[in-house]
Amino acid sequence: MKRIGVADTTFARVDLAGYAVRTLQEQGTGFRVLRRTVPGIKDLPVACRQLFRTDGADLCLALGMPGPAELDRTSAEVASMGLMMTGVLEAKPIVECFVYEAEARSPAEFETLARRRAQEHAINAYAMLFRPHDLARHAGEGLRQGFPDVGPVRRTH
Amino acid sequence: MKRIGVADTTFARVDLAGYAVRTLQEQGTGFRVLRRTVPGIKDLPVACRQLFRTDGADLCLALGMPGPAELDRTSAEVASMGLMMTGVLEAKPIVECFVYEAEARSPAEFETLARRRAQEHAINAYAMLFRPHDLARHAGEGLRQGFPDVGPVRRTH
Amino acid sequence: MKRIGVADTTFARVDLAGYAVRTLQEQGTGFRVLRRTVPGIKDLPVACRQLFRTDGADLCLALGMPGPAELDRTSAEVASMGLMMTGVLEAKPIVECFVYEAEARSPAEFETLARRRAQEHAINAYAMLFRPHDLARHAGEGLRQGFPDVGPVRRTH
Amino acid sequence: MKRIGVADTTFARVDLAGYAVRTLQEQGTGFRVLRRTVPGIKDLPVACRQLFRTDGADLCLALGMPGPAELDRTSAEVASMGLMMTGVLEAKPIVECFVYEAEARSPAEFETLARRRAQEHAINAYAMLFRPHDLARHAGEGLRQGFPDVGPVRRTH
Amino acid sequence: MKRIGVADTTFARVDLAGYAVRTLQEQGTGFRVLRRTVPGIKDLPVACRQLFRTDGADLCLALGMPGPAELDRTSAEVASMGLMMTGVLEAKPIVECFVYEAEARSPAEFETLARRRAQEHAINAYAMLFRPHDLARHAGEGLRQGFPDVGPVRRTH
Repeated sequence: MKRIGVADTTFARVDLAGYAVRTLQEQGTGFRVLRRTVPGIKDLPVACRQLFRTDGADLCLALGMPGPAELDRTSAEVASMGLMMTGVLEAKPIVECFVYEAEARSPAEFETLARRRAQEHAINAYAMLFRPHDLARHAGEGLRQGFPDVGPVRRTH
Repeated sequence: MKRIGVADTTFARVDLAGYAVRTLQEQGTGFRVLRRTVPGIKDLPVACRQLFRTDGADLCLALGMPGPAELDRTSAEVASMGLMMTGVLEAKPIVECFVYEAEARSPAEFETLARRRAQEHAINAYAMLFRPHDLARHAGEGLRQGFPDVGPVRRTH
Repeated sequence: MKRIGVADTTFARVDLAGYAVRTLQEQGTGFRVLRRTVPGIKDLPVACRQLFRTDGADLCLALGMPGPAELDRTSAEVASMGLMMTGVLEAKPIVECFVYEAEARSPAEFETLARRRAQEHAINAYAMLFRPHDLARHAGEGLRQGFPDVGPVRRTH
Repeated sequence: MKRIGVADTTFARVDLAGYAVRTLQEQGTGFRVLRRTVPGIKDLPVACRQLFRTDGADLCLALGMPGPAELDRTSAEVASMGLMMTGVLEAKPIVECFVYEAEARSPAEFETLARRRAQEHAINAYAMLFRPHDLARHAGEGLRQGFPDVGPVRRTH
Repeated sequence: MKRIGVADTTFARVDLAGYAVRTLQEQGTGFRVLRRTVPGIKDLPVACRQLFRTDGADLCLALGMPGPAELDRTSAEVASMGLMMTGVLEAKPIVECFVYEAEARSPAEFETLARRRAQEHAINAYAMLFRPHDLARHAGEGLRQGFPDVGPVRRTH
């Protein structure tokens, strides 16, 4: 039985973890979900570290929404570097799923984008643990999360 | 008995730790506060490392005010990366509470912002240690520290 | 028998690993290729860490295409720092091969650039493992990957 | 007997370590000064690491002057990150004292700024080791190094 | 017998290591030079790590030329952070000698700058290992590598 850690925040404005967990469960069985909710994205790396160390996770999904201000940009970078450090030190994957408000033009569009990205990263997380060959089959095919796949370069010319 | 480390600076222009400690004490019991004051925000990561290692803290609050100059911006990033490294290496949470002068329009507004942010981060720190389910219940709800909560995206359209 | 790890992504729009592996095989024998495909470039450092630790790789090739948006730029930096951290911690080489869409003016030119860069980094990877003296002989000679070599400065004046 | 490591550079244009050491000696006794001079600011982190590891320092002062060019800006960031990493790994304080030429309008003003900053950081270093309560008493009071203290926000409105 | 590691690249357009090694040999005896040539500057940190670990180097010289494009700027930062990490983890000095094409106005001027910088960093490397007092004597004197020394601030007013 594998363990998938799911870390999310109270700062985010969409229930990213809800979408991710439901999608994980639709992919198959053979895993248990462990959750930790923290205040903001900078708290996600330690939450993942604890999901790995204390809770025995084999992979973590780190879900968050960086704020829209210029200073939030730096926070996102530091959070991202912290997730990277944690994954490398643990030698276990952390699927980072960040959604930025500036990526959408309206609240409705944003909700859709956030939901889709959480779902597609959850599908990826499941594949990384249970179906690595699915990923290998799509190497270099221009897949995207939250937006439509763009496809390989050859097909576009 | 849990231990909460509180690190602050002589550089800051508001007694952030005073507000944080009073708020922590209003949340409940079952913990002891350990304090270290250092000159500036770049000294906070080692102060936290020592609060964890020497003083046995279970979580640290790192409170500071980056200066207003362009160079201070870089200092804030390095300080933030240092706090991130420390938290990840210790596998224990560091609640970073930084307040920037540019975030407010007047000294009075700034004092209010700084006080509220220190208080709300202290509430978060307490929740992370003693009431993780409180955080889980508010996942994705657009909570903020120092400013009014913005709420989830759904409610805004 | 040496082991060469090859990590690539489903996000990339060119089969970089395909080109790299074929080129490696043209260089000689004495090695086995181990592959891992992950969703995006930020997943490459942990894939390499696992190729080293779990699969016993002696060197890794990390192939990816950062996206064209401003935010993707930061992702590329974080991915690159993660590859650096992994290589340094393992004390084993990771040949980073990133191709940016903005480096070419048309899809056809881009495909050519991506293919050549993957091939030339594969040649370098082979040389690092099997023919370090080939590299030493070309020290300071202005070699390039994906574009024509520029040569040493002396020859240009 | 405590040990204070003092690392400085031949690149700097002011004898920062001279000012710092004299100021340390004016603060009291109970410590020995250990010195290492390196070429530039990027060499300071390893010098501090060696002052801790080989020479048994309890705290280090790292003194330097980043150059005025745009590229020097990046060097300062890397040096600063290196000092941060070293302090966190050793769990011992490194007081970073960097002075930038752009901070002053004339050579005379610069010399004064550099001297004062070195002196005030030396006072801080001494306080961190021998009088932590002095720092605690001034928490949140807007102290500065090299420029006049700005005081707490309350006093300014 | 000390060991000096020299790492350089095939990307550079000047034989920096050639100049550095000749200069090292002019400084005195008591050391052996160990060399590793890698493709680009991002490969230098692992090369240095291996020079320390596998080859027993006491100090490394890392010589490279970042490319002129905007993207190369980021590569230089990542390479520089990697060298910093390696030096700090090994607790041994890495003398970074990077030369940027934009620092000179003509190929001839560039060749001269590159040669001088390699030579002067080699002199520094030798001094760090064999004559630390030479460096201490010049603390705060405004020495430069590749350009004329600027001298201390006092002398300029």
